[in-house]
Amino acid sequence: MPRAWHIHDYSGYQGLRLGEEPFEKPGAGEVRLRVEAFALNWGDMDLMKDNYSFSFPRFPARVGIEAAGIIDAIGPGVEGFSIGERVSTLPYFYDNRGASTESMVIDARYVAKAPPNLSAVECASIWMQYLTAYYPLAEVTPVGPGSHVLVTAATSTAGAASLEIGRLLGATMIGTTRFAENEEYLRSMGADHVIVTGKEDLAARIRDITGGKGVTMAFDPVGGGLIDQYAPALAKNARIYFYGTLDTVWPPLPFVDMFQKNAVFHPYSLFNYVEDPLMCERGKAFVYDMLAAGRLKPSIDRVYPMEKYIEAFDYLSQPRTAHGKVVIETGL
Amino acid sequence: MPRAWHIHDYSGYQGLRLGEEPFEKPGAGEVRLRVEAFALNWGDMDLMKDNYSFSFPRFPARVGIEAAGIIDAIGPGVEGFSIGERVSTLPYFYDNRGASTESMVIDARYVAKAPPNLSAVECASIWMQYLTAYYPLAEVTPVGPGSHVLVTAATSTAGAASLEIGRLLGATMIGTTRFAENEEYLRSMGADHVIVTGKEDLAARIRDITGGKGVTMAFDPVGGGLIDQYAPALAKNARIYFYGTLDTVWPPLPFVDMFQKNAVFHPYSLFNYVEDPLMCERGKAFVYDMLAAGRLKPSIDRVYPMEKYIEAFDYLSQPRTAHGKVVIETGL
Repeated sequence: MPRAWHIHDYSGYQGLRLGEEPFEKPGAGEVRLRVEAFALNWGDMDLMKDNYSFSFPRFPARVGIEAAGIIDAIGPGVEGFSIGERVSTLPYFYDNRGASTESMVIDARYVAKAPPNLSAVECASIWMQYLTAYYPLAEVTPVGPGSHVLVTAATSTAGAASLEIGRLLGATMIGTTRFAENEEYLRSMGADHVIVTGKEDLAARIRDITGGKGVTMAFDPVGGGLIDQYAPALAKNARIYFYGTLDTVWPPLPFVDMFQKNAVFHPYSLFNYVEDPLMCERGKAFVYDMLAAGRLKPSIDRVYPMEKYIEAFDYLSQPRTAHGKVVIETGL
Repeated sequence: MPRAWHIHDYSGYQGLRLGEEPFEKPGAGEVRLRVEAFALNWGDMDLMKDNYSFSFPRFPARVGIEAAGIIDAIGPGVEGFSIGERVSTLPYFYDNRGASTESMVIDARYVAKAPPNLSAVECASIWMQYLTAYYPLAEVTPVGPGSHVLVTAATSTAGAASLEIGRLLGATMIGTTRFAENEEYLRSMGADHVIVTGKEDLAARIRDITGGKGVTMAFDPVGGGLIDQYAPALAKNARIYFYGTLDTVWPPLPFVDMFQKNAVFHPYSLFNYVEDPLMCERGKAFVYDMLAAGRLKPSIDRVYPMEKYIEAFDYLSQPRTAHGKVVIETGL
């Protein structure tokens, strides 16, 4: 029987247990994957503590929303996929049939063909990071030449993906990190400028970089007091995409700066965009094409075997200077 | 010499002093008004305590941004206005040449012709409230039949104006107030539903009124903890226009609700829209036409004589159940 990791309550990832479950038969509109690799995300840890915008419908539950694998069964009514084909899963709403398994059934709408020349580990490291970056940067408030985009906590996988996509669209990308040693990595991902928070005056550096104009967009999973630091350097009509909850201490938003700049604060989750079929198709097409053309390249930090899922979360949860995705390889 | 009220420091409206100042000659592009009436706004009080998005360039300074009067001098290069014509001032960026005077010079771009059949007091009570409501409701995220709009602190002048404009556009308007005795007034201004905050479960009432869909827009000068109360009843893609700072205690925004709803928090000031010449013209035309047609009607609460400006602020600053504008009539 396929092995799978399950969580049994909201005690956090330390509560994960490796077990077995029978093969599931795909229903109408579904496909089954022999999972080769599945990726970790910060949101997994929040979810396992019930600190997420979604809760598990029931326990035990599998975890994770990014898997890559080979289709080994196809349910009725599915078109465009065939047995033996490598695919990966798009970020779909968490349920209790997550990716932490050797065999998973999923709605074919949330399955994408594997771009050529990518490994299974890389294929498990595409959709969460690139679609998170794609909608704000390319669709909702598109950036391009002349735009200045601030990416905070830029070494995060979504942060680095936004540097890649923003550079590709022609914007000037400004990445922040708490650690000066990350500068080279951030530049390699697409940062035109790197600011070390805590060491440098964030607003002063932004004003300097932008010739006083400020940034038109902040792509920020930190929030909290960091917004105060960059708010004086927001451009008119700037939009803050807040896509995580890294900072747990929240002073009031900097209203005076925001009133003056007509700045908008947008708590952003890609799920609201992926659920729209047309937006989903556009995001898939953009990212697939750029991966196939070699203009995007998933960055992999560490790969762990199936048995080491908890150790992988230990690594992910540390304050650290990770560069890319943490992925489980099943060996299948 | 014309009399004028001046503020000399940021000690608040109690520091206002009535004095005189010589007639000013209008410069290029400017007109001069013999002021018949000028209106009070909450923002005046915030500004006089340096708690506003703008500070005075210098002291002594006049206060106020809404005046109505008769043009008695015209500077070079002004077209479309003539001596003896009644006009009123649009909300322009506060400077130290405010409306609290018997004679004021102002950039003709921020002057609007008086709609027919309105008194001078009514003409001083148009632009702040109606333009504040106009841009969110009619331009940026237009509402219409099928829209449900939540207006908090709806007895405020901008709140009541938004009820009028929202009803005129065909939206279903929900007004909140802390005092049940305001219900009749709010219904007369355009509220289809009135919710008494503190007494009723705000989210439950909204869900009931909207058939579970929630409100697509909140027009809210309160913010703070009130957002927590209505956030569970926001519709998908809702926008919160936050245009005041009535609540001084700010818990973190309700991120889980906002992530789920893709809700956007927009600290909103009409100045950012009025400064755009095309948006300014559109706002002026809409409000003028609706006033001329009798479909909007400024609501006047109290009128004070020139000498009673401080008493008028005493009245405005009280927790109370005011219904409309507080205005100074100069007697000229």
